[in-house]
Amino acid sequence: MGEIISVNKKKYYNYIAEKTKIYKLINMTRFSSSVAELRSSEIRDLMSLATAPDMISFAGGMPGNELFPLNKIDEILNSLSDKEKQVALQYGPTTGLPTLLESLADWLEKKGLPVKSNKLIITTGSLQAINILAKAFLDPGDSVLVETPSFIGALSAFRSYQANLITVPLNGDGMDINLLKQRLKAASSKPKFLYYSPNFHNPAGIIYSEKVKKQMIEVLKNQEIPVIEDDVYSDLYFYEKDVPKMQLIKTMDPEGIDVCYTGSFSKILGPGLRLGWMLVPESIYQKCELIKQSIDACSPSISQVVADKFIREGHIDNYIAEVREEYKKRGFAMIETLEDCMPDSVTFEKPRGGFYTWLQLPEGCDATAVLKKCIEKGVVVVTGKTFDPDGIKNDHIRVSFCNTDVETIKRGVPVIADAIKELI
Amino acid sequence: MGEIISVNKKKYYNYIAEKTKIYKLINMTRFSSSVAELRSSEIRDLMSLATAPDMISFAGGMPGNELFPLNKIDEILNSLSDKEKQVALQYGPTTGLPTLLESLADWLEKKGLPVKSNKLIITTGSLQAINILAKAFLDPGDSVLVETPSFIGALSAFRSYQANLITVPLNGDGMDINLLKQRLKAASSKPKFLYYSPNFHNPAGIIYSEKVKKQMIEVLKNQEIPVIEDDVYSDLYFYEKDVPKMQLIKTMDPEGIDVCYTGSFSKILGPGLRLGWMLVPESIYQKCELIKQSIDACSPSISQVVADKFIREGHIDNYIAEVREEYKKRGFAMIETLEDCMPDSVTFEKPRGGFYTWLQLPEGCDATAVLKKCIEKGVVVVTGKTFDPDGIKNDHIRVSFCNTDVETIKRGVPVIADAIKELI
Repeated sequence: MGEIISVNKKKYYNYIAEKTKIYKLINMTRFSSSVAELRSSEIRDLMSLATAPDMISFAGGMPGNELFPLNKIDEILNSLSDKEKQVALQYGPTTGLPTLLESLADWLEKKGLPVKSNKLIITTGSLQAINILAKAFLDPGDSVLVETPSFIGALSAFRSYQANLITVPLNGDGMDINLLKQRLKAASSKPKFLYYSPNFHNPAGIIYSEKVKKQMIEVLKNQEIPVIEDDVYSDLYFYEKDVPKMQLIKTMDPEGIDVCYTGSFSKILGPGLRLGWMLVPESIYQKCELIKQSIDACSPSISQVVADKFIREGHIDNYIAEVREEYKKRGFAMIETLEDCMPDSVTFEKPRGGFYTWLQLPEGCDATAVLKKCIEKGVVVVTGKTFDPDGIKNDHIRVSFCNTDVETIKRGVPVIADAIKELI
Repeated sequence: MGEIISVNKKKYYNYIAEKTKIYKLINMTRFSSSVAELRSSEIRDLMSLATAPDMISFAGGMPGNELFPLNKIDEILNSLSDKEKQVALQYGPTTGLPTLLESLADWLEKKGLPVKSNKLIITTGSLQAINILAKAFLDPGDSVLVETPSFIGALSAFRSYQANLITVPLNGDGMDINLLKQRLKAASSKPKFLYYSPNFHNPAGIIYSEKVKKQMIEVLKNQEIPVIEDDVYSDLYFYEKDVPKMQLIKTMDPEGIDVCYTGSFSKILGPGLRLGWMLVPESIYQKCELIKQSIDACSPSISQVVADKFIREGHIDNYIAEVREEYKKRGFAMIETLEDCMPDSVTFEKPRGGFYTWLQLPEGCDATAVLKKCIEKGVVVVTGKTFDPDGIKNDHIRVSFCNTDVETIKRGVPVIADAIKELI
């Protein structure tokens, strides 16, 4: 009898294996090969857990809900003329509403960006800007240079075009330049671009030093490898004195490198508007405009009208100054609590701005195990491998301090510490 | 002397040819091969002309500026709680805000769509829905079945994934079924999907007959060729009696065909919100969600909050009834004026709804010549070849009646007639 069951079981398993194979085959021929390389990100999958009522979430990269400038936006919406309201509801030009392009360009120019010698495109979030640039440059199998760790959104975009990710590890000052040189030398084909994030890196939290940026320029000059410079957190510094060293490669405007700078209103006004931008050389602009036409025709006009007024009426700098102070308080509370309660075997660079701390776990301690323990205890963080271009290295966790107040940080971080202590 | 010049000229031409070759080579290796296939659409390029102050534009497919429900949207914005305002400014789930998914699903279900057995995704306009589906299915060189003529936005999206467009001509009842069968038989590889637009076709203006839709189902059943059914104009019918025959293949819910239905708020609320949707089988949904994560993370929350309230508070059906009457007036004015002033050699199907009339030009009369003449005279239309998947056939013009009032239609259409008369 036992044997019969086991024979039937075997048959059943074979049947399932066969079905799976057939299913996979169907799936492969049915869907594109690029989509086969996309997997659901752990961050996204965990979002459902993070919404449980009592859960403390240090997982997301969203601004604090209670920090949005609701009154200012109400004022703006109530002050619009009928004509402006019509503009807000109508299609706009693919590259952005002229009024916003003008006010944003002025604002960026004041920050030192070479607005006049480049072209600006409004995008549906800066992730769309990165996606469009990826589409402009990448054929399947093309190589791109990325940091380890790196922003998950950009990695997904590059994977979706079947890019071969060449990884350059980060240290406290930015990319490891010697490894960048080695990787470039060893690459079988020239990378189509280098993607990096200079300030308050997501997830690593670091600022690139001036020295590293200058070395990058030296290495990349006249190599025909454009740089995608993703800078969405730089307004949210804790120390005024850091500002000079946070200069962008785009601002330095080096000869012999095409720099595509991308930015966003998501962290300095509201991600729900879905507005970002790219500032790029003319030849790249033309390609990106055509791609955007085929993706979503134009970005939301309603958001563009609001963002334009927010800049034009002078609210943006005041608002940024206000939230900067609040994120600084949260960041300091995070550092203090981590120093208070974490075992010495957990190390991290103290954030000097932005949204994130990046904790190196004790040796042998796996981030997924930590996450599971944390969730049991009512806290969510993100595992390191989410940000590893190879999807393997899992010895860090990312702990955000953007969407939790000081009190919650003080209550939640010790829970993470307990989880780690139980595992080591 | 003449010879020297001519030698120099020859050298110069060779030099230019060489430069161009080198440039092309650089360009080809630098940018992706998919982007090389994208060209700026004539519609888009003409938009700049269409904005000249005195120009009458029958070119765009935008709703009338003066028809937007400004008061209702003001009321909605002013009625939002602080919590709702925070939702409007925050990231939302990739597939859409739960409130809008719920209210939209209810609304679609009332229209007979199989909401419960499918999954809904909110997209950044329905063009993004089409783009995501294209990315889900297409590898470079894959075939897709499209209509001649076809919606330019969809054609651009398919081209951007280097699709091989297999064309099936339209007649007054829809796709030519015999040619569809022939194309399918002759295709060297199975098309990855069929894209079509059943109601008030852009640009052809026609409604698919029930017979043709049933024949399509017969032809495609169990062929593993999904259908993308793009239906953004069907609420804007002129005749109540047409409604029964405008049933979607998605609504018929035929066995053995995966139908991906796409729709939009653009024509029935405001394109500036950038909100569309797709209703698709579960297996396709999963792929599309992953793709959307890598494109723009989520659609604008601010727009989703507005659209949700607009449905939930019962405004949408009243508003549609209102604009339907206005577009009917404009459509009738268009038909009347065309019949009054066009030479007999210009023929067209009378529109029964939607935004467009599709004029067949007299033999030998080229649409681009007509357009140029029209622009000289202060009127803009769109040339037929814009909508030809092969980009060649240029014996039609598309004349929109959506964003011009009756008086302007009566003034502008005779100008087009004059332009044509001068050319024949």
